Amino acid sequence: MKSEFEFIETIRRRYNLSKIGDDCAVLPKDSKTDLVITTDLLVEDVDFRLDWTTPEFLGHKALAVSLSDVAAMGAKPVWAMLSIGVPAQIWKTDFVERFYNNYFRFARKFRVEIIGGDISKTPDKIVFDSIVAGEIEKGKAVLRSGAKAGDSIFVTGSLGGAAAGLNLLESGIRYDDSAKIWQKPLLLKQLQPFPQIHTGQRLKEKSLATAMIDLSDGLSSDLTHLCRESRVGAKIYAGQIPFHKNLRLVAGSFEEKINYAVHGGEDYELLFTVNPKKKIRLENGLKNPDFSLIGEVTANAEIIELITGEKSSILEPKGYRHF
Amino acid sequence: MKSEFEFIETIRRRYNLSKIGDDCAVLPKDSKTDLVITTDLLVEDVDFRLDWTTPEFLGHKALAVSLSDVAAMGAKPVWAMLSIGVPAQIWKTDFVERFYNNYFRFARKFRVEIIGGDISKTPDKIVFDSIVAGEIEKGKAVLRSGAKAGDSIFVTGSLGGAAAGLNLLESGIRYDDSAKIWQKPLLLKQLQPFPQIHTGQRLKEKSLATAMIDLSDGLSSDLTHLCRESRVGAKIYAGQIPFHKNLRLVAGSFEEKINYAVHGGEDYELLFTVNPKKKIRLENGLKNPDFSLIGEVTANAEIIELITGEKSSILEPKGYRHF
Repeated sequence: MKSEFEFIETIRRRYNLSKIGDDCAVLPKDSKTDLVITTDLLVEDVDFRLDWTTPEFLGHKALAVSLSDVAAMGAKPVWAMLSIGVPAQIWKTDFVERFYNNYFRFARKFRVEIIGGDISKTPDKIVFDSIVAGEIEKGKAVLRSGAKAGDSIFVTGSLGGAAAGLNLLESGIRYDDSAKIWQKPLLLKQLQPFPQIHTGQRLKEKSLATAMIDLSDGLSSDLTHLCRESRVGAKIYAGQIPFHKNLRLVAGSFEEKINYAVHGGEDYELLFTVNPKKKIRLENGLKNPDFSLIGEVTANAEIIELITGEKSSILEPKGYRHF
Repeated sequence: MKSEFEFIETIRRRYNLSKIGDDCAVLPKDSKTDLVITTDLLVEDVDFRLDWTTPEFLGHKALAVSLSDVAAMGAKPVWAMLSIGVPAQIWKTDFVERFYNNYFRFARKFRVEIIGGDISKTPDKIVFDSIVAGEIEKGKAVLRSGAKAGDSIFVTGSLGGAAAGLNLLESGIRYDDSAKIWQKPLLLKQLQPFPQIHTGQRLKEKSLATAMIDLSDGLSSDLTHLCRESRVGAKIYAGQIPFHKNLRLVAGSFEEKINYAVHGGEDYELLFTVNPKKKIRLENGLKNPDFSLIGEVTANAEIIELITGEKSSILEPKGYRHF
């Protein structure tokens, strides 16, 4: 079956859609500023389950996933809209109230103004469409398409935590008093992801990143997107991947950890490429250095190699896909 | 149960959301231009049924309902985004392809650029979120809040057609060869509404409308929204309401026709108010005059009277509501 990525590629070519293909569309705003904008659809029983999460977590996450796209452009989020569809039996409860309270609280944290939205009834499942716009100095948006062979590849934070949290939820663990202390950070990484807004902006201000994408589908898929747009390939050094510190408690072997970190989605960290001449500036430029060098851009277009010790294997995009 | 309008009012006050309360949010773009933006969620089995419509009609309507909101601001539509969620069994068919083809065709008609969107799987129902932005001369967006007592109230086109079309669909009539000739315009009014973009822009260019809203929920509800924002009331003359020419073939009595035209939604015509001194300019200003004077703005805040001959009754907002 055709994946959604293949379908988007088809319509992008057929209708010559030049604004499509990055975390956000980039539009001219005024003589000094560009507007970046993104939309993310979240569907009950596909993206979340009501018995795994809370209205508060969902309010946070609905905004966070779109903020993460704005972060990946290096932009400052400015305004947001939210469309929400809920069945009548949910409308009768305090779900929507609790959802919005946390959505607004999180928006205020980043001084994002809520400017509109829509509310609809649905037959039986909840759905959100989260729209966030950001602003950035004209021509400075960090695209997926700027990586060059020889650039170093970095990720922020740690990987695999959100996928391990999902695994815990699937095995019946819930974020409540019964959860073990080591499980909670993994569950939170899945339920309440934190978008890397400040790091994204710092990278842009210092003109450090040649290309950037947020890790939503999973490293293997998102790096493939970046490489396709940049017409390059990549080598990833397995031994340098920053695993979530509690990942070892879910994944026993190194192979298992790699699997979570490379193919597991929803970490909402940033993946970015840097000209090696600027590595020192990167280390000095980010105030709280929380990033890891994990590989290198190659000229081997769209081929991603995973280097484990002496061995090299081709890394196929096995991150999340809907179809 | 609290309606969605009451809920929106609550959060609007609680979070001091100044951009909410019109057909579109109005945002500063540059020194000369404002951006207007709207989002509309359409849900299967709430807003449409697959056995009543076609992918082509849906592609058209998903864009049309948002274009209508842009029209109601007097703005020129510029770009659009679409989030779509479909179940796997629909993804396997040509539905999405046919849907997008007509969506893009209709976008091209108004030179609207498609700049992004999202595609997700859903468990079993289709959902669309349609986002459209327009541009307008700074400070010139026609708001709901500008109506003054004494202004004349106009509507474009005819009313009741879309609700009559819905009635035909509910009674088993389909838009195919078996439909009678008189039924087709009513079905099309429901399935393939046409947004009044050009009329909206003409009204703005000539500074004719003091307030404007599109008729999506139904005249009684939409006029209530306009009156609330303008802190005025209204008198509507039943005898001056422009019924859809085929409405009489569905609705036998005058009362029935009034019911369709006043409470039936989805006509996607424009309702606007004009200072009576400008009535002559209005008649000269619109190239193809296709609008009707149906009433007058009063100082009687939020009270809408329906005048039928000598009788006056209070018109309650009985248009479409989700909750």
